Amino acid sequence: MGSSFGQLFRITTFGESHGGGVGVVIDGCPPRIPLGEAEIQRELDRRRPGQSAIVSPRAEADRCEILSGIFEGQTLGTPIAILVRNEDARPEAYREMKETFRPSHADFTYQAKYGIRNWQGGGRASARETIGRVAAGAVARQLLAHFHPGLEIIAYVSHVYDLVSAIDPATVTVAEVEANIVRCPDKVAAARMIQAIEQARTDGDSLGGIIECVARGVPPGLGEPVFDKLEADLAKAMLSLPATKGFEIGSGFAAARLRGSEHNDPFEMREGKVRTATNRSGGVQGGISNGENIIFRVAFKPTATIAREQKTVTAAGKETTLAARGRHDPCVLPRAVPMVEAMAALVLCDHALRQRSIS
Amino acid sequence: MGSSFGQLFRITTFGESHGGGVGVVIDGCPPRIPLGEAEIQRELDRRRPGQSAIVSPRAEADRCEILSGIFEGQTLGTPIAILVRNEDARPEAYREMKETFRPSHADFTYQAKYGIRNWQGGGRASARETIGRVAAGAVARQLLAHFHPGLEIIAYVSHVYDLVSAIDPATVTVAEVEANIVRCPDKVAAARMIQAIEQARTDGDSLGGIIECVARGVPPGLGEPVFDKLEADLAKAMLSLPATKGFEIGSGFAAARLRGSEHNDPFEMREGKVRTATNRSGGVQGGISNGENIIFRVAFKPTATIAREQKTVTAAGKETTLAARGRHDPCVLPRAVPMVEAMAALVLCDHALRQRSIS
Amino acid sequence: MGSSFGQLFRITTFGESHGGGVGVVIDGCPPRIPLGEAEIQRELDRRRPGQSAIVSPRAEADRCEILSGIFEGQTLGTPIAILVRNEDARPEAYREMKETFRPSHADFTYQAKYGIRNWQGGGRASARETIGRVAAGAVARQLLAHFHPGLEIIAYVSHVYDLVSAIDPATVTVAEVEANIVRCPDKVAAARMIQAIEQARTDGDSLGGIIECVARGVPPGLGEPVFDKLEADLAKAMLSLPATKGFEIGSGFAAARLRGSEHNDPFEMREGKVRTATNRSGGVQGGISNGENIIFRVAFKPTATIAREQKTVTAAGKETTLAARGRHDPCVLPRAVPMVEAMAALVLCDHALRQRSIS
Amino acid sequence: MGSSFGQLFRITTFGESHGGGVGVVIDGCPPRIPLGEAEIQRELDRRRPGQSAIVSPRAEADRCEILSGIFEGQTLGTPIAILVRNEDARPEAYREMKETFRPSHADFTYQAKYGIRNWQGGGRASARETIGRVAAGAVARQLLAHFHPGLEIIAYVSHVYDLVSAIDPATVTVAEVEANIVRCPDKVAAARMIQAIEQARTDGDSLGGIIECVARGVPPGLGEPVFDKLEADLAKAMLSLPATKGFEIGSGFAAARLRGSEHNDPFEMREGKVRTATNRSGGVQGGISNGENIIFRVAFKPTATIAREQKTVTAAGKETTLAARGRHDPCVLPRAVPMVEAMAALVLCDHALRQRSIS
Repeated sequence: MGSSFGQLFRITTFGESHGGGVGVVIDGCPPRIPLGEAEIQRELDRRRPGQSAIVSPRAEADRCEILSGIFEGQTLGTPIAILVRNEDARPEAYREMKETFRPSHADFTYQAKYGIRNWQGGGRASARETIGRVAAGAVARQLLAHFHPGLEIIAYVSHVYDLVSAIDPATVTVAEVEANIVRCPDKVAAARMIQAIEQARTDGDSLGGIIECVARGVPPGLGEPVFDKLEADLAKAMLSLPATKGFEIGSGFAAARLRGSEHNDPFEMREGKVRTATNRSGGVQGGISNGENIIFRVAFKPTATIAREQKTVTAAGKETTLAARGRHDPCVLPRAVPMVEAMAALVLCDHALRQRSIS
Repeated sequence: MGSSFGQLFRITTFGESHGGGVGVVIDGCPPRIPLGEAEIQRELDRRRPGQSAIVSPRAEADRCEILSGIFEGQTLGTPIAILVRNEDARPEAYREMKETFRPSHADFTYQAKYGIRNWQGGGRASARETIGRVAAGAVARQLLAHFHPGLEIIAYVSHVYDLVSAIDPATVTVAEVEANIVRCPDKVAAARMIQAIEQARTDGDSLGGIIECVARGVPPGLGEPVFDKLEADLAKAMLSLPATKGFEIGSGFAAARLRGSEHNDPFEMREGKVRTATNRSGGVQGGISNGENIIFRVAFKPTATIAREQKTVTAAGKETTLAARGRHDPCVLPRAVPMVEAMAALVLCDHALRQRSIS
Repeated sequence: MGSSFGQLFRITTFGESHGGGVGVVIDGCPPRIPLGEAEIQRELDRRRPGQSAIVSPRAEADRCEILSGIFEGQTLGTPIAILVRNEDARPEAYREMKETFRPSHADFTYQAKYGIRNWQGGGRASARETIGRVAAGAVARQLLAHFHPGLEIIAYVSHVYDLVSAIDPATVTVAEVEANIVRCPDKVAAARMIQAIEQARTDGDSLGGIIECVARGVPPGLGEPVFDKLEADLAKAMLSLPATKGFEIGSGFAAARLRGSEHNDPFEMREGKVRTATNRSGGVQGGISNGENIIFRVAFKPTATIAREQKTVTAAGKETTLAARGRHDPCVLPRAVPMVEAMAALVLCDHALRQRSIS
Repeated sequence: MGSSFGQLFRITTFGESHGGGVGVVIDGCPPRIPLGEAEIQRELDRRRPGQSAIVSPRAEADRCEILSGIFEGQTLGTPIAILVRNEDARPEAYREMKETFRPSHADFTYQAKYGIRNWQGGGRASARETIGRVAAGAVARQLLAHFHPGLEIIAYVSHVYDLVSAIDPATVTVAEVEANIVRCPDKVAAARMIQAIEQARTDGDSLGGIIECVARGVPPGLGEPVFDKLEADLAKAMLSLPATKGFEIGSGFAAARLRGSEHNDPFEMREGKVRTATNRSGGVQGGISNGENIIFRVAFKPTATIAREQKTVTAAGKETTLAARGRHDPCVLPRAVPMVEAMAALVLCDHALRQRSIS
């Protein structure tokens, strides 16, 4: 269980890193939404390894095939199944993993949970699992564009290790994000981040960081008031991504150090609409969008796979050491940007459909 | 929708702050778990207003009534319905809210979503909604105690405004938490926090803060590897609580500023078990518990209701000002401690049952 | 689990026949639907015991209280909780059940499933559980009337034991159904049915029968094409009612004895609409409503509780005999008519909301 | 929505009759269950067209590929995705369907619901959709065999048109069912049924019928007491199959013509177990299995596709006639036998896991 996400726009992902392939089934997509493989492939290309000098050099084209749900360039209203075949599998590279638990990976916990695991790679804990999410996110974006023209979701790297950036979520553009390989729209910071990531790789090490995401043009009224608050579903969506350790919306953890008189967002009228003068709420109040920009941040830990030798234990309970020899990302953030956008799109799309059902 | 939480241990809350009452229906509770109203009332008493000098002085006894699902002191396996009647309602105190949107409250977003709202209080956005959660959390604890003796969930206030505390999650006790009215087990910090909260009230203002929670004795193997990762469900659970703005687990946002070689938790053998030497993972790896302490933190904003005059607009779109006259909490954290514990218990209980189904 | 029904218009019932009460929480009801206790009470009155000479003489008023979700005569969009207190409980009348399994009741299976049961009555297997369904069905009807004016759901007793009736589902009216205490709109058949039921009671016996239900004015397009076919959800809804043994739609079991050339419904144009010349499909094709009358039938077994002595065994595994002394219905059908209508309304309402979400 | 079935053993099917393929994702399958493609292919071969002289002559091999969830011959506990490619598509054979609604098919209702349909075949209403169900059912059987050795599910054709058979559900074997191409274990009746089906094909017509199914060795305690009664879930499962019009369990519609004293199943002790002397309950009481054989029947209408000319209308609203030229089944029942078994296995498997979660 636990491979499905969403109530009305409901996706189910499948596939291990090694085996026939990975993919997703999307159930609940309304009919007559324009959709083709091109829109999906574009997002998968932003996610795939080998796309730049600072990510994993694995050569995986990750070509998607739409198996169902589309006819003559439009959705049918029936399940959309998307498949990406696995390639470039080198199971022998993972043979060591059969016997040894990689530190801060899921090898031990899978073994504890299931009593079995596909040791030829990370199984479901592999970043390949996110292919299905990114593909489904591309569909969600088409649907959001159809129902809410003008709605935009843009994520970008705001921090890498100790490097910070200065980005205005109100004006940042996709072009600025895609202008460099680290996906940080602050050019100066981006250059330093790239350098730091390359150095980490040279050092046989890895770096953490923060991705910020803004959703602009979200209509007021999306989100449910109790358990399925918009921020709650976003938090779950983000913490379900591999390597994430934290989520905050609007003022986030900084809110803890504020007084109410400093934190509250006064209402005002602007262009005939109820608006807030500030946006510490981050676009949601009481779990429901208020029409302001939705802004949140996600903390990523440094990649667990590193070339340095680390202490660990074997499945048989013997202490040993391990040094990764695979082709890993020294920093997951550049490739995680489309994942964050995809999960945000899935959450917004689901709540957009939910709101339609009661309107 | 959105008033239910959990897959197998599934709760549905109901009730506005004004009206017949609030409560919860718990479906999926296994049979023959010892349970009575006393266990539930104890947790509700930790949540209720009027319990101390630093919380809302509203006089609500919040007595619970178990309507179903219990027989001769044991659960029947059928739905457990729990009702708490509303009392001390002073709808006239809220008349101003009929016309005016309170800043950083959900008045505007409810109106935008539903086109109607119960203006005689906060409706479902009222903290009274959490009564059902806390009651259900008490049941979840009984169940966890039954299936996993030794499992403990302890939350406590770690920060209020700019005041920090020093608490060891590995050894903190319930008695230490309950030893003072702010529920911060660091006595020195607690005294300062109480003073700061009293000062905020005097100033007609409010304060934010951070609650930390530890779950000790959780067996390895709880949590699902993809969307329903243990940390993802905890994040959702916490962000679904009123006034929360952020969630982090283990190293959290600090992970962003670390290298892999600093962050990874080496495995080692201790007392014949696979253990980690450090716990930056916070007790979960790949979404699944690894047997270490689960440690997470939740950021709370300062209470939105403050006595100071604030700018806002009316439902008719006229700019105006508003100063709260109700009896509010100058800091929500002391009463939020049992809410955080309840939500954590619900998540763990649900995953404990899920794991049973496949074992 | 298993106490919830519906995807978007989702109800959760609670309560045993003995204990604090029974009721329902409805989540997902759209806002601003006119609703009061009167609409709900009217349906409960059709369901309650003591309403006529041929049903159980138990004196239960079954007064409903709306606990939440309604404000100034309209739904709020938040959960609607409805409670009916238990009265007239005579647990001592059931003491024998503590030790002895009643034939064709659920005493044995509850014990086998849970290892515990509330023997002071039928627990969740009591017909009292249907109070929550009938109350929720009344809400569903209000909603259907709001979204689809003209939509009517009418159930009636068509068979009792070997007595058949002649009723035209296209024209039958509620007034005709309510014109007699057996709820059979064929007056001549009704008189015979009443006589047969009274005789059965005199004999210490009980009778089975069939309820037919028609939904008129259902728009084309409701129902999902695969698992959640409209007829599949109706079948589940009906077989979830106590004492039901069969369900058929349109031609039903008679279809098995037909040729395709006899069974197919030719399409034709009528008043500018695509219509079928016949209606063996019963208003659904491929799981989706086609705009014709939806017609289905539900088979009920004779009441299991009878005054005659029957062979059975004790919980301790000793063979014994049992003769009911309670106040039971000699035929459940007259009181089951509102239950069938309620479940049909819940299914249609849920699918109406589902269709809105994708339209 | 509506393409998923089951709560814990949850399947999601995808695919139209024309397009990349059809298949299923199974989420919630416990780990370490022996499974390979052979077990799945065996059931698909019982379902596929071209298997005998009395079914559709379409040449589809329906070879399955397991894409994920299996490792070294065992389930991993992760989603099992199974794909069957579409072959032998002759979209031109369906061009007429683009313009014309086939009587008693889903062409019109799909158009009414979605405003679009894949007219190159039956889309999701095609019997090809059941490939995913049958494949998942094969997995469910492996799991049931693992947890409940001795549990058997056997379906068979009991009626075709006006031809009845005599079969004892307590003793019927798979070998007897598979001994002839109509899958009726009564040899004499089978011969007549085959003849009748061949005659129907010659006549350009089709025949309906009834499939009976028995599940033997089901432990007491499976099923939930209210909405998810075992018979309710079975009813939904069966009515979700194409061409079904009715469901009955145990005494079924015949119960309507019985007295309680005739219908009740007396309890008795047999071999130290609580058993019923008769089995009019059909193996369930109060929605929960009682350990007796579960026996139910499903009514199938005659195939809607017939070679005879029928009246119908075009999408443009013009009256016309249509005579099918495709390669259809003159009677769906022989191929529906594995579908009925598969759906029964899915229901029992789901409830077996549900019961584990609370035990």
